[in-house]
Amino acid sequence: MNSFNWQITKHSSTSRARTGILTTPHGQINTPAFIFCGTKAALKSCSVTQAKENNAQIILSNTYHLMLQPGSKIIAEHGGLHKFMNWDGPMLTDSGGFQIFSLGHGSVADEIKGSKTPKPKSKLLIKVTEEGALFKSYIDGVTHLLTPEKSIKIQRNIGADLILVFDECTPFHVDKKYTADSMYRSHRWSKRSANRFEINKDFNKCEGSAGPQSLYGIIQGGIYEDLRDESIEFNINSGNFFGLAIGGSLGSSKAQMYQIVEYIASKLNNKHPVHLLGIGEPLDIWSLVKWGIDTFDCVSPTRLARHGSALIKTKFGKINIKNSIYKENLNPIDINCNCSTCSNYSLSYLHHLFKSEELLGLQLITSHNIFFMNALMSYIRKAINEDNLLKAEKIWYES
Amino acid sequence: MNSFNWQITKHSSTSRARTGILTTPHGQINTPAFIFCGTKAALKSCSVTQAKENNAQIILSNTYHLMLQPGSKIIAEHGGLHKFMNWDGPMLTDSGGFQIFSLGHGSVADEIKGSKTPKPKSKLLIKVTEEGALFKSYIDGVTHLLTPEKSIKIQRNIGADLILVFDECTPFHVDKKYTADSMYRSHRWSKRSANRFEINKDFNKCEGSAGPQSLYGIIQGGIYEDLRDESIEFNINSGNFFGLAIGGSLGSSKAQMYQIVEYIASKLNNKHPVHLLGIGEPLDIWSLVKWGIDTFDCVSPTRLARHGSALIKTKFGKINIKNSIYKENLNPIDINCNCSTCSNYSLSYLHHLFKSEELLGLQLITSHNIFFMNALMSYIRKAINEDNLLKAEKIWYES
Repeated sequence: MNSFNWQITKHSSTSRARTGILTTPHGQINTPAFIFCGTKAALKSCSVTQAKENNAQIILSNTYHLMLQPGSKIIAEHGGLHKFMNWDGPMLTDSGGFQIFSLGHGSVADEIKGSKTPKPKSKLLIKVTEEGALFKSYIDGVTHLLTPEKSIKIQRNIGADLILVFDECTPFHVDKKYTADSMYRSHRWSKRSANRFEINKDFNKCEGSAGPQSLYGIIQGGIYEDLRDESIEFNINSGNFFGLAIGGSLGSSKAQMYQIVEYIASKLNNKHPVHLLGIGEPLDIWSLVKWGIDTFDCVSPTRLARHGSALIKTKFGKINIKNSIYKENLNPIDINCNCSTCSNYSLSYLHHLFKSEELLGLQLITSHNIFFMNALMSYIRKAINEDNLLKAEKIWYES
Repeated sequence: MNSFNWQITKHSSTSRARTGILTTPHGQINTPAFIFCGTKAALKSCSVTQAKENNAQIILSNTYHLMLQPGSKIIAEHGGLHKFMNWDGPMLTDSGGFQIFSLGHGSVADEIKGSKTPKPKSKLLIKVTEEGALFKSYIDGVTHLLTPEKSIKIQRNIGADLILVFDECTPFHVDKKYTADSMYRSHRWSKRSANRFEINKDFNKCEGSAGPQSLYGIIQGGIYEDLRDESIEFNINSGNFFGLAIGGSLGSSKAQMYQIVEYIASKLNNKHPVHLLGIGEPLDIWSLVKWGIDTFDCVSPTRLARHGSALIKTKFGKINIKNSIYKENLNPIDINCNCSTCSNYSLSYLHHLFKSEELLGLQLITSHNIFFMNALMSYIRKAINEDNLLKAEKIWYES
């Protein structure tokens, strides 16, 4: 019996939006779904118990960070990442590529926020060759070579349910020729990743702790539609992949990101769950689900919380608890929110915690933001199932 | 009906140790009990839900901190501290005196750790007069005058169940004359505190949020037995107090602290629950309960956690998670501990969290330390009830 399955349960009649069930050995994910970032095998300021209480379905960890600290071997000795961090639900790891190249060039999310000038090239990324990526550890400066084979071996040790091929996350500021060459190399890396993945598919000879895992391919091609077409064809025809992720550069503005993601998604069939790497602000999600994106990951819910920002149902999307207007406000963040933070704490108390530099403030806002994202996704799923997504979006911002 | 009650349930036959039930409007406290410090209306890195799950019975907050941030008025507007911070169990506030004078002279706990030379006098304490203490806010340098009347009014607004008279926490490095003069002034402040407390005792004219509250007197006199005798007589004869706290200087070493606390406790009757201010390391608690101390408060369980120290059952009392010997240790902090941290996480994972500077590490160790302190107190209560405290102490350190 295959412990992985992807099933679309409902199509919207007005867009490519769909609900689905993504089955993994650690449980089912109702899609569209938000994947929360537990970069270093921990959600920021949030226990797995709190994440579960706030309806989180799936957590992502980063191969790049975990290979450097604590190393995948000790995770495997625990019986894998689930046991290491005490999360028994579905998990995903990226391949390490995204992080290495983000540290080298700046992240895709930074780029679409309009940073037209490339970041000064970081000294952490040394060089990219056919073999793999040579980089320095951000912790101690030690040089590491990550190859497709090593990335998969490490992800096997870590043992997340869903794992990704190794790729170069091509930046925006390069020309089309670089983007194309990089894409072809990532395709070759993709094949090597899939070959390495196949070696231990029976898990009898598994070097690590992994139980059954499924592999995602990554669609490259930057902002060039013809390259994206080629990459889609490559990924679908390879037959290697359970899921597909949209990677690489998404342009230098939100408009460009929207355009290219809509284009890519429109070319995909229904056979694979589709993941968009590193993008997932609430305002974006409404558009992205309409184009057929099934899962999102973004550090924003927990990162915003650390800066005192609580997510709310407005186009602006958040309030900052540190603002003195909340000093004497006895209301919760959102009077209609059922999260434990909104049920038990006033804006005034949360403001006090931030003024007093009490770490509890980070916990409480993080809990709210996780609950909020899951409430948004649940609301969107219901709207798709009831086929009234457009109306639901209006109501969301009016309520 | 009096919503406060103090009942001794069992006396040890080999010492003055006793178990008791301290009843408050927010529930009963089984004593001997540890009071956890939520200085600024929050336990450090720990939600009230986590505190309750780890069996915490009572939380203390500090009048000094709360009067400065957020101010007692806004707490009263929430309906009091319980509602402000979402803790529905018993609470205690100190009077502000301890903090003002600790910031001026260094704390009692610092002194008994053997700091023979007084700390350079802080500029935060400006002067002590008959009226009260003039000090500068540690937050913004604004000058405040705290008087017995103001302290009680603020504690009425804050609304903890158990509140303390305003006192000068006399430092060790002063002479006997200063200690005596300070004691007499603290006695006069004590009367003024009690008078202010009586004004609104019917709570019909209550200026703040407080429901019924009970007042603790504070025994002064430094390390001088004759002064302590006088202060005990004053506090008992005043008839104003539900409970008694041991305050003031406890000497410049643990031996001196032990000697004076044993002396004071031996002179007390059974009519009052006895609280020892600011002392409560596990190793001390064994001795202190034998002398008849009922409640303790100390920042150590949460403070130690923030520095990576987890409490364990040895005479040394703790391990430091940051030590690299734990890097690959798959065992929990204590294999026999039933706390959620020990049930779910390895030393290796906790070490990883500290290496990675993940705030979750602080949460998990804090939870363990709170559970540990409550397990210790519960074990001690059981031993007193079974009248085998001495044997129980040996077993604790052997298990």
